[in-house]
Order: sequence, then structure tokens, then C-alpha cells
Amino acid sequence: MNNFTFYSPTFFSFGKDAEQQAGDLVKRFGGSKVLIHYGGGSVVRSGLLGRVKASLDDAGVPYVELGGVKPNPRSGLVYEGIELCRREDVDFVLAVGGGSTIDSSKAIAAGVIYDGDFWDFYSGKYIEKALPVGTILTIAAAGSEGSPDSVITNENGMFKRGATGDAIRPKFSILNPALTQTLPAYQTACGITDIMAHLYERYLTNTAEVEVTDRMIEALLLTMIHEGPRVIENPDHYDARANIMWAGMMAHNNSCGVGRSQDWNSHNIEHELSALYDCAHGAGLAVTMPAVFTYVMNHDVMRFAQIAVRVWGCQMDFAHPEATAKAGIEALRHFLISIGMPKNFAELGAKEEDIPKLVDVLCNGDGRPGSISGFVTLNEQDCAKIYQLMV
Amino acid sequence: MNNFTFYSPTFFSFGKDAEQQAGDLVKRFGGSKVLIHYGGGSVVRSGLLGRVKASLDDAGVPYVELGGVKPNPRSGLVYEGIELCRREDVDFVLAVGGGSTIDSSKAIAAGVIYDGDFWDFYSGKYIEKALPVGTILTIAAAGSEGSPDSVITNENGMFKRGATGDAIRPKFSILNPALTQTLPAYQTACGITDIMAHLYERYLTNTAEVEVTDRMIEALLLTMIHEGPRVIENPDHYDARANIMWAGMMAHNNSCGVGRSQDWNSHNIEHELSALYDCAHGAGLAVTMPAVFTYVMNHDVMRFAQIAVRVWGCQMDFAHPEATAKAGIEALRHFLISIGMPKNFAELGAKEEDIPKLVDVLCNGDGRPGSISGFVTLNEQDCAKIYQLMV
Repeated sequence: MNNFTFYSPTFFSFGKDAEQQAGDLVKRFGGSKVLIHYGGGSVVRSGLLGRVKASLDDAGVPYVELGGVKPNPRSGLVYEGIELCRREDVDFVLAVGGGSTIDSSKAIAAGVIYDGDFWDFYSGKYIEKALPVGTILTIAAAGSEGSPDSVITNENGMFKRGATGDAIRPKFSILNPALTQTLPAYQTACGITDIMAHLYERYLTNTAEVEVTDRMIEALLLTMIHEGPRVIENPDHYDARANIMWAGMMAHNNSCGVGRSQDWNSHNIEHELSALYDCAHGAGLAVTMPAVFTYVMNHDVMRFAQIAVRVWGCQMDFAHPEATAKAGIEALRHFLISIGMPKNFAELGAKEEDIPKLVDVLCNGDGRPGSISGFVTLNEQDCAKIYQLMV
Repeated sequence: MNNFTFYSPTFFSFGKDAEQQAGDLVKRFGGSKVLIHYGGGSVVRSGLLGRVKASLDDAGVPYVELGGVKPNPRSGLVYEGIELCRREDVDFVLAVGGGSTIDSSKAIAAGVIYDGDFWDFYSGKYIEKALPVGTILTIAAAGSEGSPDSVITNENGMFKRGATGDAIRPKFSILNPALTQTLPAYQTACGITDIMAHLYERYLTNTAEVEVTDRMIEALLLTMIHEGPRVIENPDHYDARANIMWAGMMAHNNSCGVGRSQDWNSHNIEHELSALYDCAHGAGLAVTMPAVFTYVMNHDVMRFAQIAVRVWGCQMDFAHPEATAKAGIEALRHFLISIGMPKNFAELGAKEEDIPKLVDVLCNGDGRPGSISGFVTLNEQDCAKIYQLMV
């Protein structure tokens, strides 16, 4: 196990009606003028935005609003949010929505008190300071509610990049599973896939002797396998939603990823898909993961065999561990299809002829050295073959 | 799943030589005059105390010292520490040791800035304020390095009680697995047992639909079953020590206990044993747990069958689930014996004739209502039968 530090100071309020505490929590964590940041109409239509405003009113905390966050959140709205916060002397950013809204809020929070272009943070600069951020989560997926990370799409070129820093860890996150009950099945499944990807990206490690984090990752994957089909079958299943919601946070606050190298090549390879085609990130991951894992499996067959046996219930083929490893990848593929995820480029809306362009942006965009690194370092040729496996 | 809040703002620095950061971390978390609190000679003999002082010296942070913490830490030393801190204007308590030292430090930190008797907190008063506490852990066991809890033995009657409050959550905890390599096998095994008890106490719940926390608890138990025998066999196994150390923290910071009722009757029943006989808490738990679980098994046979199958690898007997449940309890008993733990009153140094006295203090001491509550409410008769099972 490698040396590490771990710090997760977010206060979580979890359960029914938890959003009623928004005003009190903003005050507790130092906010006196709030930007409420959100996406489209569902937050308005469901009445959630109204309840959040009422809670802020009750607590005597003034606010301004900025809606319009889209999935795969854009740099343009971040610049707009930064301007608005400066003009209105905002000192707290409250995200009401999913991962895209939270990531956009984190970018605004970091940008407001930074003299340069906020995109510097998405080009590798660590975020040292930011306005405090709070979240009210409406979809279990990105894990941004408990993470120090944010991903934004640069509209100047349509490519996605991530930023990180303890300063953008939410001060509080309100997790009410009931808020996710109105999600369509497709979005729910996208969220499940994203959570599972966060777990797989940590599982694929080159660090030896990491039993405790292996076991924790497996535990959270088993939870998704148990609860995923239940919410697809019955969207109103509060308890299944609740188990998924806590698993989604634990999958990405890094308590199960400490002390080990991690992969993140599936995320990198997918990010070019959702940036170019604006498909859902989770849907892109459903197509990407089985292809990546098939391509890199031989780098560590026993690791793939382990997850096949422990998580997917495959029988270990002791004479042919690679058969077990492969069976685990196929079990993942079939699970994702069973919850309604796409299985190839066509179902995703991606095009084979774009592969050279995807590979070029992936491996060379924004200063990358002609390859991406993780569990295995993948050059342009590797990445082209992986995209080809998805066709 | 029940509604809950979760807050774990401790900064963890984990790995080799992590104690060298002690001075910097004290300063980062606001300390300007430190009480170094520790136990016996091993912290001195190993050179750890010297390294900690050197780190404080390098950071320019003055300190006073108070050693002498014993296992099952006593109220007398807490009063002494409170006086010392007040006299010396200490504003930060640094625990260097195991759970007993950390718990004693937490009691001192709460008592220093409290006008009344610190024991009020151990009689049910929530701890709202305390001096900041940091820890340098030398044994993986109590989980106090990441918890809001503290247990102290009142010397006026020799009974143990717990206190809690977010204010006594450590600001930072330094976890260097190498520091635990010099522990004797018996103490190592006591620590393993304590960690497993923290997991079992959370597993035994009356809350339905808690798959995610069930799975996480199982993951940490599986880790202990894998790593425990490896460190008993080879005390210098750094990686096995590391996996146990992180599991010990995760087992008790409550991320795997949220949203569910918990038991804690095994701890309550054991506390009277270690208070009266001054045996190691973990050793007491090794004798207590199988007895308690055997006694309460029929309250929820399927829960015991589930842990037997998922954690202990028992085959499910679908026609006789109680046989599977029992096999899981026996597997736990044999595991604990295999790592060198005592199996009954005699090996623990406890006496059958003391049972009435144990039961009386347990069920009626310090204002208790003639029973203890948890997974099952146990009255005096129940508790007497459970102690009898340990003879």
C-alpha cells in the first residue's frame, strides 16, 4: 500500500426532506449571500427550487440565481456565473442538481476569487482557494457531492478536462433519495453506470497488497448490482435509491481508493465521446468500459479474475484464469445492457469515421504527450483499437 | 434506511514516517501549546516520543507532557491532565498511543474548557466544545482516531462509560502502520478483535434495506479475516498491518454504520469485564461476542445466516437457516481462538461467582433501567445467562 493523505470534511445530511435544512446549513458554513446554481426545468417543476428558496428565506439568507446548466457543463456558463457572483458579492455557491450542476458550481466558486482565467485549473493548476460550496443532489452518479473534483467542457474546441482541490470539496451535501425518484429510467441507469465506473477505475491498480480497498470497492459494486435492477424495475423504491445514493458518494470520496494507483483511462476515453456527441457520460462509459477492459485484461489477468469471482459470482477456472477474467467483463457488459444502457457506437450516436479525430484530441489535446496513462499507458494506436472495439 | 447525518472531518496522514508531520499538522490545525499525552514505556523506548518532540521543536511549537495512560484509561489521570492544561495554557492535545491514550486525551480536551465535572459527559451529556485533538496511532483497534467517541473507567466504582461529540473528533490522525510492527501478538490480536466487534455491533441492526452498509461491513470483516492471520504469523508484515489499520479506522468512523440501528450490547457486556478484571478490551470481546450472538441469534436468524455465508464462506442450508447462522458464529469463535484470543471466563481471569455483581453494575449502574438495549433488549436475567455461556 502506498502512503497517502485522506480528508473528507463534507457534512452530509441524508434522508427524506433533508433539503429543508439548506438555509441553516448555508449559515452554519459561513454563507451570507448565495448563488443558487441549477440546470433545467425539472428542479423548478418539481418544486425543489421553491423549497430551497423558502429555506433560505426562513434563514434570512439572500440569494441570486443562475439556471441553465447542461449535462457536460460548459465553460461559457461558468464565466457567466463568475461575473454574477462578483457583481452581487456572493460568498457561497449552492448547487441544486446533479454532477454537472455541482461541477459547474465548483468551477464558479474557484473562479470568483482567482485573478486569472478559471480554465487554468482545468489545465493542471491545483485549486487552493474557492468560495464555499454546498450541494443538494438530485441524481446519484458523479459523486461530486463528496469529491474534490470537477469536470467542465471547454466550448472552445469541445473537450472535457478535470480540476481538483480540497477547497472545492462541498462544505455540506444534502442527499435526499426521494428527490431521485422522478428520474427517468435512462438517467437512473446512466448514474448507476457512472458509479460503477468510479469503482472500476479505482480497482484497476498496479499497487500490490490493497485488500481493504479492494474489498470496499467490491462491496459497493455488489450494492449496485443488487439495487440497480430494483430501481429500474420500480423507480419509486426509496430504499434502493437510498442505498445507491450512499454508495455513489462512497464510490468517489476516495475512501476506497486511497494508497493505490488508479486507472481513469475509461473516463478519459469516454470524455471525448460525451464532449463530441453530447451523449450522457454514463451511457458513454457503458460502451467504453467493456472495450477498455477487454483491451487491457492481459496486463493483470488475476485482477480481472478476482473481480469476476468476488463481484460477478463467476466460478474460478483455475486452469484458465483468463476465461474467468473474460467472463467477468462479459457479466459487466450484460448487466449494463440489462439496465438499458447502449452497447456500441451506433446506439450511442457515435461514428466510426470520427475515430481518428477522437484519438487525436484524446492523446494530444491540451498538451497531452501522445498517450494517456493509468492502469496501462495507451498510445494513439491503442486508443484507436479500443474505440474500434466499440463499433 | 433511516435518515442520518455524517461528518468525518479528520485529516488522515497515512504511511511510513508520517509522524514527522506532527509539528506541521498541529500548527495547521491551530495549536500553539501542546499537551503530549501518552501511556507507558514503549512509546519512549521505541524512540517515537523523541521523534514527535523533534517534529514539534522543528515547527516551533512548545509542549508539556503527561504519560501514564493505562489500558482501560482512568478518570484520575483525566483530572490531572485537565489541571495541567489549565495551568500551562495548553490549546491542543496530542495523543501518542492507542485507543486508551486517545480516549483519555479526548476527555481532557473536553474537560479543560468545561466548568463542571468532565464526568458529566460520560453520564450522557453531549460534548459541544473541546480543545482540538490530534492523534499518532500506535495500535489498530479502537478506531478512536476517526471517531467522536471516548470511553473512560470511573475509578470511583470501577465502571466504564462512553461519551460522544463531534467536537472530540480528531483534527488530524497520523497512521503509520510501521509503528504497530513492534506490538506483541496478543495485543495485535486484541486489536483485530476490537475492530471486528465494531463491525459486528453495526451489522446487528433492526433496520431493513441497508445493503450498502451491510456490504461495507462485510468488506471490512473479510479484510480482517485475510490480514489478521498474516500479522500474527509475521508481525513485520507492513502491508498486512496497513490494511488492518485503514480497516480499523473505517470500521469505526461510522461510514458503514449510518442510517441503521446498531447493537453495542457486546461492548456493554464486555465493559464490565475489563473494568472489573482489567483484562484487555479485545480479549473480553473475544469471549463476549460468541456468547451474545448465540443468545440473540433467533431474533433474526437470516441476518446471522447472511453474515455466515457472505463473510465466513459457510454454505447456506436453505432448509435449516439456523444451522448456517450457528456455523457463522462458530467460525467467528474459532477464528478468534486461532489468533490467540481467550475463549472463556477462566482464560480471561473472570470468575463465575462475580456474575451477579457484573449483571447488577451492567443493568443498574449509573442510572440504567435494569436492562441494556440494542439489537435485543436484555434484562438482568438475559445478561446473567449470557455471562454464564462464557464460563
